[in-house]
Amino acid sequence: MSVFDLEAYLKERRALVDAALERFLPGEDTPPPTVHRAMRYSVLAGGKRLRPILVIAGAEAVGATAAAVMPTACALELIHTYSLIHDDLPAMDDDDYRRGRLTNHKVFGDAMAILAGDALLTFAFQLVADNASLVPDARVICDVVAEIAAAAGTAGMVGGQVVDIESEGKTTTAETLELIHTRKTAALIRASLSVGARLGGGDAAALDAIGDAGQSLGLAFQIVDDILDVEGSLETLGKTAGSDERKQKVTYPALHGIEASRREARRLIERTKSRLGVFGARSAPLCALADFVVERKS
Amino acid sequence: MSVFDLEAYLKERRALVDAALERFLPGEDTPPPTVHRAMRYSVLAGGKRLRPILVIAGAEAVGATAAAVMPTACALELIHTYSLIHDDLPAMDDDDYRRGRLTNHKVFGDAMAILAGDALLTFAFQLVADNASLVPDARVICDVVAEIAAAAGTAGMVGGQVVDIESEGKTTTAETLELIHTRKTAALIRASLSVGARLGGGDAAALDAIGDAGQSLGLAFQIVDDILDVEGSLETLGKTAGSDERKQKVTYPALHGIEASRREARRLIERTKSRLGVFGARSAPLCALADFVVERKS
Repeated sequence: MSVFDLEAYLKERRALVDAALERFLPGEDTPPPTVHRAMRYSVLAGGKRLRPILVIAGAEAVGATAAAVMPTACALELIHTYSLIHDDLPAMDDDDYRRGRLTNHKVFGDAMAILAGDALLTFAFQLVADNASLVPDARVICDVVAEIAAAAGTAGMVGGQVVDIESEGKTTTAETLELIHTRKTAALIRASLSVGARLGGGDAAALDAIGDAGQSLGLAFQIVDDILDVEGSLETLGKTAGSDERKQKVTYPALHGIEASRREARRLIERTKSRLGVFGARSAPLCALADFVVERKS
Repeated sequence: MSVFDLEAYLKERRALVDAALERFLPGEDTPPPTVHRAMRYSVLAGGKRLRPILVIAGAEAVGATAAAVMPTACALELIHTYSLIHDDLPAMDDDDYRRGRLTNHKVFGDAMAILAGDALLTFAFQLVADNASLVPDARVICDVVAEIAAAAGTAGMVGGQVVDIESEGKTTTAETLELIHTRKTAALIRASLSVGARLGGGDAAALDAIGDAGQSLGLAFQIVDDILDVEGSLETLGKTAGSDERKQKVTYPALHGIEASRREARRLIERTKSRLGVFGARSAPLCALADFVVERKS
């Protein structure tokens, strides 16, 4: 058991991220107002802020501060949010609820939801570019832009969503499911940790270790998400439970059973923590976060 | 009259851009294949390649070469293409034809069209980051990422589309129409010229002049587009003529008349060319291109 106070750590980092998102996003009255309201509606709807906190924790693991990576941390949250807005559209997963509130298109209409998503993705890269003023070497920013784009594009998140959509209602192999999980979820979680360490000045060995850790953490996170979708409720999840089954999406528990899913998640978390060993005491928040990922109830 | 052989210039630059797009875009068989096919379908459908050629011409105006800016030139074309794919969606302008072919969602479905657009926007920033290896100072790349994101986001292209959609079927003032044109079209055209000059090593005075020139050129381009939509045919435009009127979109000719529209486009082009004067002989391609923008028939 870790003696690290994760709850206090998450609360404090989440407050920093929420304040920064509020500060970075254009105000509700900035013209044209509708799209800015739609962007803020989904970004400021709460959420765990897992990806920005991973960027911060990645920076801290190599001895840097949250302040030095905050624009990029927020960029990762904007990319995550844009993907949720587009995934929820009627043409995609057709979901009415997200984070306990009506989805973006249910409030602002499909056209505005598409544009708000586009704008969040675009603005994310503007924030990463703005991070240049906080690091000594601008070349690192170029690497971060490239890494985030790769993780969010067809080799990562978008690619995972494509395979996910194409697999609906079909027999899916364990290999295809792992491909979906790796691309759709793990790629951006891995990138979050990795760019945090990169901006924080981590060397090649540090980036290698933290990238591997992020990969395992991302896969474990998605397996637990699948378990929660089977077992959870609208109240704890903020979205309709059982929606994967309803949409004929294959999940890890559906293929391997709940118990084997829990075992695999725990195995991946042990692997995550073992790869974080090189960072010594500085990896305490990340190790506690990894434990939290498998133990969470929502 | 310019003695510059614009036709040969455009043909040569377009061939360079087409070859680079073909090379940069993931192949049709790269998994997941569907999204890559959808991306290539719209990007490689032809088109004037105006924005990438402006990036190249912007670089040439300050003495740099096409090769030094090619990834960013292609990025601008990908951003333009993503915006067309999303604008054509049933939830937005609901268009069936573009560049003389079925629109992306008519061939690949709405979900894949949304994802292909998202992927093109994402990949565009990856290409800009890749341009770092071709310039001496990486800080320039950060400025280029920020400038492109600003021009493509809610202060630019996306913002213009928002106001455009919200103005449909309503009485639109001349001020609102200029706002739509400035953001939806001129912002990205201005950015194309400006980032070309920036990557090419242009100083502040050069960036100032070329930015102004790009702004006027972009507005002229959109006014001529409006005129062509009134006067053109499916054959020359590759899309349904009169579609603005059908969709109750306000246009420059509808507000000011055809003759006043032609006069304003010519005035803007004279302004463009006068701002390009500081580049001397190196601005010959851009001046010829400016003339071409008002004289074009499609």
